[in-house]
Amino acid sequence: MQLVVLEPPPKSRESMIAAYIENGEVSVREFPKPKGNALIRMTTAGICNTDLELKAGYYGFQGIPGHEFVGVVEKGPAEWLGKRVAGEINLACRKCDWCQRGLGRHCPKRTVLGIVKHPGAFAEYLTLPAENLHEVSKSLTDEEAVFTEPVAAACEILEQVKIPKGGDVAVLGDGKLGLLIGQVLLANGINVHQFGRHPEKLKIVKNRGAIIGKQPPKAKFEFVIDATGSAEGLGVAIGMCRPRGTVVMKSTVHDKVAIDMAAVIVPEITLIGSRCGRFAPALKLLKDRKIDVHSMIQGDYELKDAKEAFRHAATKGTLKILLRNK
Amino acid sequence: MQLVVLEPPPKSRESMIAAYIENGEVSVREFPKPKGNALIRMTTAGICNTDLELKAGYYGFQGIPGHEFVGVVEKGPAEWLGKRVAGEINLACRKCDWCQRGLGRHCPKRTVLGIVKHPGAFAEYLTLPAENLHEVSKSLTDEEAVFTEPVAAACEILEQVKIPKGGDVAVLGDGKLGLLIGQVLLANGINVHQFGRHPEKLKIVKNRGAIIGKQPPKAKFEFVIDATGSAEGLGVAIGMCRPRGTVVMKSTVHDKVAIDMAAVIVPEITLIGSRCGRFAPALKLLKDRKIDVHSMIQGDYELKDAKEAFRHAATKGTLKILLRNK
Repeated sequence: MQLVVLEPPPKSRESMIAAYIENGEVSVREFPKPKGNALIRMTTAGICNTDLELKAGYYGFQGIPGHEFVGVVEKGPAEWLGKRVAGEINLACRKCDWCQRGLGRHCPKRTVLGIVKHPGAFAEYLTLPAENLHEVSKSLTDEEAVFTEPVAAACEILEQVKIPKGGDVAVLGDGKLGLLIGQVLLANGINVHQFGRHPEKLKIVKNRGAIIGKQPPKAKFEFVIDATGSAEGLGVAIGMCRPRGTVVMKSTVHDKVAIDMAAVIVPEITLIGSRCGRFAPALKLLKDRKIDVHSMIQGDYELKDAKEAFRHAATKGTLKILLRNK
Repeated sequence: MQLVVLEPPPKSRESMIAAYIENGEVSVREFPKPKGNALIRMTTAGICNTDLELKAGYYGFQGIPGHEFVGVVEKGPAEWLGKRVAGEINLACRKCDWCQRGLGRHCPKRTVLGIVKHPGAFAEYLTLPAENLHEVSKSLTDEEAVFTEPVAAACEILEQVKIPKGGDVAVLGDGKLGLLIGQVLLANGINVHQFGRHPEKLKIVKNRGAIIGKQPPKAKFEFVIDATGSAEGLGVAIGMCRPRGTVVMKSTVHDKVAIDMAAVIVPEITLIGSRCGRFAPALKLLKDRKIDVHSMIQGDYELKDAKEAFRHAATKGTLKILLRNK
């Protein structure tokens, strides 16, 4: 008689690990797998400056951060099962005026993935409504598709401000968002003058056709994008803008920023706050290989090493750091 | 033989008196009559907050202030002689791109009547290029026509921002400019919600149809005008503005003003600086009696008493103070 050893069937694993922010510290902890429709297994996620600000405690955040991700739908509507997806981060009510106008990202009742009252993507699993999902083309790798959210944030500028093809735009800043903004504008036929302090980073946009600016000129550009991430950036941007021109505010700085009112009022400058954007144009730009994201990846960590990944991401001058769920 | 006593012919009077600002003080002094084309004898002038700021020394100003005036052309092109005029305050080069586009008020080489390198209207005589002049309708009194410049500044908002007829706009402030803005918007068929602290002043716009707001509501208005003249006004205006809405900045505050960047960026609010406007629509509104300026006049001084007039104008809560050249 042959002895057959039957292993017990694998217990359905109902827990997961996730990065957790509490009191200015990142730890990796075990959590119950989230419940919700759709359930997505994160494969790759990206650390954004907002995540670093959440860690620094600026918004009283406590929870699982992360809003830039690619993953695979494990549970949810049949048509999404098994699909590789990116997901829009605002979970809107879908009923109010904003939602009806396709602007759920301004829904006053919204929660926001990994930022406002919805656990984020630095976890083995996350949930999002199917309405938020976008299938990722097979031609895109995870490392490329994980840039969808920040590329969409860069694309948002073009939804808000009509910049003519062939027009000149100054982009201030050579950080993650600044480099994506420069590339998105270049891909749209706009002449980009990029200003920053790091020649090696500026090379990423220079290779795509940007003119690298030296000293910021006074009152020259009709359009100026402040993506410095610094409190001083807005004032410099205002100074570079010509009368009746537009400064796009892309630097979320936690502190209050002092601005010279006369410098805005006398030349009648427009300042416009700009945040999240639609995913569709971003996915198209990535698929068309209009954005060099590979040069921007500077670190690749397993989810369990999220603490170390955050430390790396917070090192001055660092571009994109990825988290992987292997 | 009859003795005929001939008086000497009156000596052509080549001097005049004018208000003069120096080291934070207003005095009335004798000056040579200015030379320039056209030469205008001021009949009525108005004291504006900017004049009070010039006196306070914020812009290092020293000279003859005054930019709100009505007068009569005494020398200049034949077609202007003897005409009663108001005058646009920016003296532009008339050659640059801005001037070619009809935006001489942004000409980088401009001087500005009573503000930047051109002696102002708080004088018996002033000069302006004939191109800056607008004839004042006989149906308007001097006291009405002297409001042309500030009414034009209020009209400027409608040149910059497309506000639909029947739309709702919050106007913050019940000072001189706030009350004119409220009235200009009402005259253009816009629903004005005016916010201020002085019921007796708010009555001026209430009588014209404004709704008097109580507590500023949060995130409610698509258009908000900050005419508080205070450093806090802009933050309040931003808080009242709904996502993707527009805040028009009409408060020139000399200090830097601290703004919460996230409060602008997250709801993607537009801030737009707004300054001088065209005179033609302002003169039309005044002629059509759409603006109650009489209720706004709170003092009437002879030019020689300019020091006292400035003191009155600087008293908290004071509306328009006039200077007369009798």
